[in-house]
Amino acid sequence: MRFPAPLVTLIRELGRLPGIGPKSAQRLAFHLFNRSEGDVEALARALLDAKRGLDRCPRCAHVKEREAPLCAVCEDARRDPKVLCVVEQPADVLAIERSGEYQGLYHVLHGALSPMHGVGPDELTLALLWPRLTDGVEELVLATSTTVEGEATAMYVARSAQERGLRTSRIAYGLPVGGDLEYADEVTLGRAIAHRRPL
Amino acid sequence: MRFPAPLVTLIRELGRLPGIGPKSAQRLAFHLFNRSEGDVEALARALLDAKRGLDRCPRCAHVKEREAPLCAVCEDARRDPKVLCVVEQPADVLAIERSGEYQGLYHVLHGALSPMHGVGPDELTLALLWPRLTDGVEELVLATSTTVEGEATAMYVARSAQERGLRTSRIAYGLPVGGDLEYADEVTLGRAIAHRRPL
Repeated sequence: MRFPAPLVTLIRELGRLPGIGPKSAQRLAFHLFNRSEGDVEALARALLDAKRGLDRCPRCAHVKEREAPLCAVCEDARRDPKVLCVVEQPADVLAIERSGEYQGLYHVLHGALSPMHGVGPDELTLALLWPRLTDGVEELVLATSTTVEGEATAMYVARSAQERGLRTSRIAYGLPVGGDLEYADEVTLGRAIAHRRPL
Repeated sequence: MRFPAPLVTLIRELGRLPGIGPKSAQRLAFHLFNRSEGDVEALARALLDAKRGLDRCPRCAHVKEREAPLCAVCEDARRDPKVLCVVEQPADVLAIERSGEYQGLYHVLHGALSPMHGVGPDELTLALLWPRLTDGVEELVLATSTTVEGEATAMYVARSAQERGLRTSRIAYGLPVGGDLEYADEVTLGRAIAHRRPL
């Protein structure tokens, strides 16, 4: 016995999403089967509206509404145009905004260098970044993630920026606030000690 | 800074799916933002086609194509109508079918009794099950899951079936095939010993 064709198609499409394996896709499909038609239509509509209503900011590659010329950050005249923060994903912009510690502009790479997965410099939005660096920018904050790929990307971008005479900085490593020392992994703890600050 | 409205809506709709928290929903939304419009349309279409093209079998509540009178199992004349296997979800039917060990019919409850979560007998497809038991059925195999809710449901259905003079059975507990004794939890191991079979 096989599943009916529309169910097989749905399971296959759901299974193409990141972090959703065949079992999860099946579970989601059956969950949707038991939801109301209105609920499923709302999800389908949200998918299409998001895809059709959103676009990349032509300046920083962050997400923007399709009709808007720039993203909300680039359009905000109060932001400091002399500092540029380089992140991997649009979600990282939101995370940094929530911290309330940053007033500059952003640049979203949409990934990190990963030769193993076929992601080279051309797959990122670097062609959009280089011209921005001549635009009165003084400091580049490298806020890519602290994974191997994120580190390599930060190094790569920093080197190019330094060649252009810019100051570069990397977000600090250390213990998470509220973190218990005994639960910290030794690499993080080692960095936290090496990068200790005078009180 | 907030996300554009279509993105907020998509994240909210994705977050309503089971097992998808706010962080996963955001990650999925950005993933979809970076996929092609055709890809997103295929997913939206699959959702609508599945919802509109599928229905519950009026006999056993398993999933069926909307135009078909019954599900594939109920329509198969070679199945043994004297044995009925009660499961929680349509996915369980597929799992049992894959084992190749079962030739009877099914009944899909679409859930398990869980007073804590407001799931009583009326929320399951029991109103559809009781009339079937007078229909030449001789044995009821209770294949609900081995969780607290699954056990309670099996007990509840078994008692009603026994009152109607039917034989009832429960799927066996024990070690998974290929399982290492030292990795089995003590409850499972205890059951496996208590239910040991003569060789």
